[in-house]
Amino acid sequence: MAATKITAPAGTPFIDMEREFAAPRALVYRAYSDPELVKQWLGPRKYKMEIEVWEPRDGGRWRYVQRDATSAYGFHGVFHGPQTEERMLQTFEFEGAPGHVSLESLELIDRGDRTLVRNHSVFQSVEARNAMIESGMEGGVNDGFDRLDELLERLGAQAPAPSGAAR
Amino acid sequence: MAATKITAPAGTPFIDMEREFAAPRALVYRAYSDPELVKQWLGPRKYKMEIEVWEPRDGGRWRYVQRDATSAYGFHGVFHGPQTEERMLQTFEFEGAPGHVSLESLELIDRGDRTLVRNHSVFQSVEARNAMIESGMEGGVNDGFDRLDELLERLGAQAPAPSGAAR
Repeated sequence: MAATKITAPAGTPFIDMEREFAAPRALVYRAYSDPELVKQWLGPRKYKMEIEVWEPRDGGRWRYVQRDATSAYGFHGVFHGPQTEERMLQTFEFEGAPGHVSLESLELIDRGDRTLVRNHSVFQSVEARNAMIESGMEGGVNDGFDRLDELLERLGAQAPAPSGAAR
Repeated sequence: MAATKITAPAGTPFIDMEREFAAPRALVYRAYSDPELVKQWLGPRKYKMEIEVWEPRDGGRWRYVQRDATSAYGFHGVFHGPQTEERMLQTFEFEGAPGHVSLESLELIDRGDRTLVRNHSVFQSVEARNAMIESGMEGGVNDGFDRLDELLERLGAQAPAPSGAAR
């Protein structure tokens, strides 16, 4: 598994994350756009993931809830612009902190049988960005990306044809 | 008329604007939330404003087109969270530059018979913020705020009762 590179320069409202995955871009895009796949990897391993809506198109909504035995954490947002294999863009809001909306863009860079995922988030203030970093997001991100690695491996084993049409 | 204070610190993706208006907050909020009023002031004086949709509620959409004799400029976005007299929050996208989405929050601060309007925008990059500044937005903003002053004066003359219930 590759390492996740997370950068959050002091005094800026940005968080950047980068990680390479051993799967072709079409497959990585499926894992980001198909809610049946998204729920198998996104977020920390310890939570059960329920996706209420996931509409990766201009103006489409998304909402999911992460649960453990005692708590439930809701998140929602809106996709902005065309969602493609090259680029996705969405707003992101944790329902525990209403009004703290961030903008998250995803770039999927084709490296043949590998894909570089670049995630760029911008917050409304440096303070809101810092609060996100201090919330311990790094553990959740790494957990999720490890699960994405595992999912891509399973999907690759199911559909070895490079055409990606096996669905 | 009051002056507009615009700040855009170098190296940040932020634009902040501040201006005081000689009207109670309920009236200023009406001018921001009722599309029949919004179209009378938002944007440069030289354009004809057509509002296609304006839904100031959580997840509601907005879209308008500014036209002159030869050109049409479309803008759209999505309201995020509850839209109230205290605070509005929306995404903002100029259709001439797809994918360049910004987040714009508005604070209306009650000063009795006057209202301080604070607008905070954050862009996905410092470069996108700089491009917005260099587009000559300041003229359009001042034009719009001058028209808002005029509209608030007309509305105040129509409905002098401080209850603001005259609609």
